[in-house]
Amino acid sequence: MRIDGLMPDDFNVTPYDVEGSVNYEKLMQQFGIRPLNEEMEARIKKLAGETHYLIRRKIYFAQRELSWLLDEYEKGNRFYVYTGIAPSGSMTVGHLLPFIMAQWLQEKFDADVYIQVPDEEKFLNKNDPKLTLEYINGLAHQDALDIAALGFKPKKTKIYFDTEHANQIYKHAVRVAKRITFSTIKDAFGFSNETNIGAIFYTSTQAVGTFIKSAEENRKIPCLIPLGVDQDVHFRIARDVVEKLGYYKPAIIHSKFLPGLKGEPKMSSSDPNGAIYLSDSPEEVVRKVNRAITGQQSTAELQKKYGGDPDKCSVCQYYKYLFETDDRKLERIFTAERDGSMLAGEHKADLARKINAFLEKHRKERDRIKDRMDDFILH
Amino acid sequence: MRIDGLMPDDFNVTPYDVEGSVNYEKLMQQFGIRPLNEEMEARIKKLAGETHYLIRRKIYFAQRELSWLLDEYEKGNRFYVYTGIAPSGSMTVGHLLPFIMAQWLQEKFDADVYIQVPDEEKFLNKNDPKLTLEYINGLAHQDALDIAALGFKPKKTKIYFDTEHANQIYKHAVRVAKRITFSTIKDAFGFSNETNIGAIFYTSTQAVGTFIKSAEENRKIPCLIPLGVDQDVHFRIARDVVEKLGYYKPAIIHSKFLPGLKGEPKMSSSDPNGAIYLSDSPEEVVRKVNRAITGQQSTAELQKKYGGDPDKCSVCQYYKYLFETDDRKLERIFTAERDGSMLAGEHKADLARKINAFLEKHRKERDRIKDRMDDFILH
Repeated sequence: MRIDGLMPDDFNVTPYDVEGSVNYEKLMQQFGIRPLNEEMEARIKKLAGETHYLIRRKIYFAQRELSWLLDEYEKGNRFYVYTGIAPSGSMTVGHLLPFIMAQWLQEKFDADVYIQVPDEEKFLNKNDPKLTLEYINGLAHQDALDIAALGFKPKKTKIYFDTEHANQIYKHAVRVAKRITFSTIKDAFGFSNETNIGAIFYTSTQAVGTFIKSAEENRKIPCLIPLGVDQDVHFRIARDVVEKLGYYKPAIIHSKFLPGLKGEPKMSSSDPNGAIYLSDSPEEVVRKVNRAITGQQSTAELQKKYGGDPDKCSVCQYYKYLFETDDRKLERIFTAERDGSMLAGEHKADLARKINAFLEKHRKERDRIKDRMDDFILH
Repeated sequence: MRIDGLMPDDFNVTPYDVEGSVNYEKLMQQFGIRPLNEEMEARIKKLAGETHYLIRRKIYFAQRELSWLLDEYEKGNRFYVYTGIAPSGSMTVGHLLPFIMAQWLQEKFDADVYIQVPDEEKFLNKNDPKLTLEYINGLAHQDALDIAALGFKPKKTKIYFDTEHANQIYKHAVRVAKRITFSTIKDAFGFSNETNIGAIFYTSTQAVGTFIKSAEENRKIPCLIPLGVDQDVHFRIARDVVEKLGYYKPAIIHSKFLPGLKGEPKMSSSDPNGAIYLSDSPEEVVRKVNRAITGQQSTAELQKKYGGDPDKCSVCQYYKYLFETDDRKLERIFTAERDGSMLAGEHKADLARKINAFLEKHRKERDRIKDRMDDFILH
């Protein structure tokens, strides 16, 4: 779907689709968002005691209202964190980006984290008969376990499922919905008159997280949302509404997309070979990584002579986004790719090992907490 | 709002407005509904042991699928009853028509009764700043008490409020919503692109009652809906959807509108002088009835000479719809109006007495059950 009113471009980003090679500079202009700049990064470092590799590497590249949020924090007005995931299959490693950031913010800023798992979203927006509400609800609980296993603190984490927590969500969603017309939604999401009325309503429920804690506690509490930039449109619409309801506009930090293993602009859970799932076996990981595209030359000889391009190499990007958080080690990997001293086979074997080490640890953590999930759920 | 695609006419009926003098014959054609005929009435009488005055007097005048419902009942496949009210103020006596019928059906057919009190409906569809969600929720609980006080059996009555019972409703509403496009809603309700997305979604929640018991018990159960004919549009849209979801299409019986005291086509709770509220004091009832329009001549002399027209007399209509259930007594009242032997003042004094007797009894019943309301609520 193409957002109405955009200049024709060679890429298109909506919550439902990412097409073409994304130009993030142009995207910021299209969306009306601003860079997460050095000054903001420095302020975060000062307040948190460190920065996060996802910020240093400009994977979180853009923001809304971040300076205001940090001002409030410095004045003692603490924020909470809101993010989420709409289940449609096993989570991929690409889905982890907002949760890795949310967990870090929880730790460094002692922030409560609210996580929406809208188990109706893909049901309403996809025409896949497999995606029944019951099936998605099952996935949602698996996703919740995967998220909690990232190190969230049970007492400060509140995961909620739209169908199961409708008593807490729906009354707030209708407040939002009353202030959004179909015209607005139609343009923003590229909907038509043939779009179903559930998909049309849905954005109201996604907006609720921006003020759910404020509503619960009956006071205005700043909210920070780490999200993939494709989700910005929901809050572009909601932010003015939320303010009219008497809450703060949310602050947002936007991440770029982890590319697919085959070079797709965004890793998609609907492409089994382009994505690493948290549920993948060690063998599947090796197989998929071995088939990944790299930025290397067509032969080992040419690669040794001319070197490759880490920016075009999905293997290098996986290190950068997720599997090598040490900047110096990452630079060594990128240099070895550029100067031809490390060939694709070696790169891939090393990445597969690192992914499998991560997944192994993740599975253990899942097992450890799986009987305590109720502690992570909104009540 | 005018329903798109209707032939221009001198009346218009939507869930949001009733304008002009309603021609119920034409309305049946417009809505595609059929008369509740003598044969059906006879079948009801046979099964129930009696008919209801609202059916005998053709106040319940139309139906969908009623023969099928009675067939099923005769085969031993019992139905449940579903109806509701969207709160926006104190209930009027006009609001009682579906509940009087539902209570009778409960008694005569041993039917469970589900009652939706959608406390978001008027919030979404009216621009009255007084109608906050909290305010309407308060009204909703008052309405529930007024309804329960009509003689419903606690164990067989399940009242639910959309915001408070969203856990039971929302998951089913999205199933309905997925199968309804904005095009369909736009035409049927006279919405525009500037309609808010909550109002657009709302009909999905109203549809849930048609299969809520079937969904709860995981089997197909026939459903009968007594309603004011203005609500038919919701189910005209929902019936095909409900069938696609694997449930029976609901059967419906449609009532005419109790006119306003001043001759308005439908008593409206937003017109304090044209409506008798269940909360009215005896003095208010007397005052309002005294100001009601009648079908009588302009002077007592002319009335004695020429007589009046009970069909144009709101006082006579109140007897017919609600306050004189004995057919012979009603006929005496109508005859006295026609032959001029009973003047407006006498008529009105008698009606006010009967209304006040009803309200007095109703208040006592409210008081008696008010601490037991939880027994009437869906759990």
